[in-house]
Amino acid sequence: MDASGLRERLARCGQAHLLRFWDELGEAERGELLADLRDCRFAEIARCFRQAVRGSAALRSQQKVDEHMEPVPKEVQGSVTRDGAQLPAWEAEGLLQISQSKVAVLLLAGGQGTRLGVTFPKGMYNVGLLSQKSLFQIQAERILKLQQMASEQFGCQCTIPWYIMTSGRTMDSTKEFFLKNNYFGLQKENIILFQQGMLPAMTFDGKAILEGKSKIAMAPDGNGGLYHALGNQKIVEDMEDRGIAYVHVYCVDNILVKVADPTFIGFCVKQQADCGAKVVEKMHPTEAVGVVCKVNGLYQVVEYSEITLVTAQKRNADGRLMFNAGNICNHFFTLHFLKDVVNIHEPKLQHHIAQKKIPYINEQGQQIKPDKPNGIKMEKFVFDIFQFSKKFVIFEVLREDEFSPLKNADSQGGKDTPTTARHALLSLHHRWVLNAGGHFVDENGTRIPAIPSSEPGMSEAVTAVINDNLKELTDLPVKCEISALVSYAGEGLEKYVARREFHTPLIIDENGIQELIKNGL
Amino acid sequence: MDASGLRERLARCGQAHLLRFWDELGEAERGELLADLRDCRFAEIARCFRQAVRGSAALRSQQKVDEHMEPVPKEVQGSVTRDGAQLPAWEAEGLLQISQSKVAVLLLAGGQGTRLGVTFPKGMYNVGLLSQKSLFQIQAERILKLQQMASEQFGCQCTIPWYIMTSGRTMDSTKEFFLKNNYFGLQKENIILFQQGMLPAMTFDGKAILEGKSKIAMAPDGNGGLYHALGNQKIVEDMEDRGIAYVHVYCVDNILVKVADPTFIGFCVKQQADCGAKVVEKMHPTEAVGVVCKVNGLYQVVEYSEITLVTAQKRNADGRLMFNAGNICNHFFTLHFLKDVVNIHEPKLQHHIAQKKIPYINEQGQQIKPDKPNGIKMEKFVFDIFQFSKKFVIFEVLREDEFSPLKNADSQGGKDTPTTARHALLSLHHRWVLNAGGHFVDENGTRIPAIPSSEPGMSEAVTAVINDNLKELTDLPVKCEISALVSYAGEGLEKYVARREFHTPLIIDENGIQELIKNGL
Repeated sequence: MDASGLRERLARCGQAHLLRFWDELGEAERGELLADLRDCRFAEIARCFRQAVRGSAALRSQQKVDEHMEPVPKEVQGSVTRDGAQLPAWEAEGLLQISQSKVAVLLLAGGQGTRLGVTFPKGMYNVGLLSQKSLFQIQAERILKLQQMASEQFGCQCTIPWYIMTSGRTMDSTKEFFLKNNYFGLQKENIILFQQGMLPAMTFDGKAILEGKSKIAMAPDGNGGLYHALGNQKIVEDMEDRGIAYVHVYCVDNILVKVADPTFIGFCVKQQADCGAKVVEKMHPTEAVGVVCKVNGLYQVVEYSEITLVTAQKRNADGRLMFNAGNICNHFFTLHFLKDVVNIHEPKLQHHIAQKKIPYINEQGQQIKPDKPNGIKMEKFVFDIFQFSKKFVIFEVLREDEFSPLKNADSQGGKDTPTTARHALLSLHHRWVLNAGGHFVDENGTRIPAIPSSEPGMSEAVTAVINDNLKELTDLPVKCEISALVSYAGEGLEKYVARREFHTPLIIDENGIQELIKNGL
Repeated sequence: MDASGLRERLARCGQAHLLRFWDELGEAERGELLADLRDCRFAEIARCFRQAVRGSAALRSQQKVDEHMEPVPKEVQGSVTRDGAQLPAWEAEGLLQISQSKVAVLLLAGGQGTRLGVTFPKGMYNVGLLSQKSLFQIQAERILKLQQMASEQFGCQCTIPWYIMTSGRTMDSTKEFFLKNNYFGLQKENIILFQQGMLPAMTFDGKAILEGKSKIAMAPDGNGGLYHALGNQKIVEDMEDRGIAYVHVYCVDNILVKVADPTFIGFCVKQQADCGAKVVEKMHPTEAVGVVCKVNGLYQVVEYSEITLVTAQKRNADGRLMFNAGNICNHFFTLHFLKDVVNIHEPKLQHHIAQKKIPYINEQGQQIKPDKPNGIKMEKFVFDIFQFSKKFVIFEVLREDEFSPLKNADSQGGKDTPTTARHALLSLHHRWVLNAGGHFVDENGTRIPAIPSSEPGMSEAVTAVINDNLKELTDLPVKCEISALVSYAGEGLEKYVARREFHTPLIIDENGIQELIKNGL
């Protein structure tokens, strides 16, 4: 094969080095490299790179962002804790829109579970619930339940189409997983998979990085790659064809996510918002969460790495943090807004750059794992488009009810692990049962307190003479799991649990109540 | 030795079984058992047992506590976030009292580090700070610094006597540790160790439990054993002799504790309170923290195991939890109040009982580790006396600044571990440096963001091509430790750090600034 034409084209873009090992490559390897090269439009990439680097330099000075930050005005805020009286009306509005098949959900699932220590898509992960359900299944069943609730309440069949953005890395296994699981009871035609783009990692002077002799270091173009993909894969048109008016966008890793949450959708619709963000309260100044705010009059998310301590520490008179609208990647868009974004705004958005340590192959053909950043990744973020909103709102929800992301492996012993995700779900379902009038008892028939102890006993001294099994106590939430097919958000459980006492583990699902221990499981 | 007299006396109290193995025991073992028996006044123990069991039965019904719970009224609340303007005046008042040697601190240190996995007193624990200081040393240095600040500010020498309550388990090693460390620079005569009582674990029908043939299962009588010990060891008299008017009581395990916090003391003094509790905001309904509230018009702490979910979930109009005054075992008392407690109220206080699994020796002389609760422990709590206060106040502080207890071993992978304690302190000191105008830079000279990332990167996808060292990233706070001898609460650091850039690890102590990496350490 003659690579001279290719070499010339690459040289024009300053990427000739990508063929450095061409002569050593076998036929298969050459094919591999050619496939990578086909995915890269280097002229465009070079333009993005220059813009991003320029933009990043301008942003470098933190003070500049800080000085122009303003909190989100009260008038465009809703809150589950402060607006309790209006929640039923918002929920009813959301269900009405769902019943008319005007609501779609869009899942951002382009990432692999690398940090989790797995090589398959995160949505396939099983955090060890009693049911062993995957994140995908949990979300699918919430969609099923909502369709059913809206249909029953308004007496008409309805559909919530589920758009799933994958990446080159996750497309095939995601597709296969849904097929194998028979789409978890959803209609195959209402699950629409599409794929975000990939970009090469670049050196600081704009050369794409070779990861191997026949392989470019590529990664998805950030969750904001969504907007480009929505256009080039005609997803917006598919939405229009289906009569969609509102889209709920969320990230795959939140086990508590209220997919197509009717209360959030109803709130946004009633406010006539074109763009909305669900947020949780940022609790302390150095919490690693981005905050939704205004900068120079435009809404955006300021990432935690961009804020100074002085600003992060600012408080209102009521003692709360001034910038406390913690972004959880959970958004509402009107289709009208999305169309404008795709057609008008997105192409003008710059990429963000992040310096990274990127393994590469050096000129001598050796694999190198750098110990300091040697290049950059370019990404867009899903929240980059807030600035284009004409009516932006935020909706504050309770973290313990709605947000528990799965990011790290248990072995890292930190936050956002399979264990914390599992505990968050079990704990929520435990509260549902208590709030519906049920109780849990231990092996002696004694009622278990509503707040389970996270520790062996009340005082240190006492434990000296006691042989508690400490290991056991680290897995403490009352083991209780309720299928979304039974309850979307805790509703309708009275008929199962009121005035009843249960042993754990307990499952309530489409087959009814199952006390696993009684069944000898 | 003839045990018949002893046997008869024990039989009168229903405790004859304690001599079951007497005839098998050697001289040394008999001495051991006799020592245990000497510590037990069984007639009094029997009375306490009956009262506690009766009281516990009355309390059993959670609803009863719930129905009578009221939040602490706004008028008796102070807050570091809401009362910012008054903090300097409160602090000045506290320092004034300290300068007049009217303030003592009292440390509750009767527990061993059993759950931590060590057999020595918790105060001796080293959580792995850069300085390798123990909790005792950290607290000692805060006392030293405060004495110095108050003395300088008011131009007179002053002393903050340090009363340390140990138990039979921790007295000797505590004493030895202070001696060995030359009292950390404090005057030996201003460190007053005393000892709380011990009580036997009891079966449900009131028999003391034998842990071994010659050993009764004994444990300290709870941190509320303080009040009995204050009386019977004449600590109150010692305080009077020294002219103490105010006592700050705290628990050994909080690495962030502001010992003799002048702001808290000044607030209480200005409010003319006789009893005060420092609290942190309880953030979500099922957080395992006791809350300070009123029950039937009297102040008390309702433990998390005693509250129903309905009550725990209640919220004010501002969205905050109604019962959010989280108790952190950090209290202010006037000496006058303490004297009344010791002389009048304490003897009438009932013990709390907790069912426990207590290892015992059965009638056949076999060691048994029960797998369900087989007995109870009796304890009093330090907060049991709030009810006697004539002017009670609470003072809300920030958890990230003031509360990080050390309870569990790192191997349990949960909360309140040496790692979380170490991170809390380093993170606080990092913020001190930033607030004083200093900055930290990485190995490339790039400034480290104020909020360090707790994760490898912004997006999952990116990490796929990156070989971050995940292990390293779990220990992320900027490593910066400032000796209390340099700054008690972040004050006075400008002259060390303003407009300077530092590499980590950084120590600032009485020897000045030490960038450990530069020194090749």
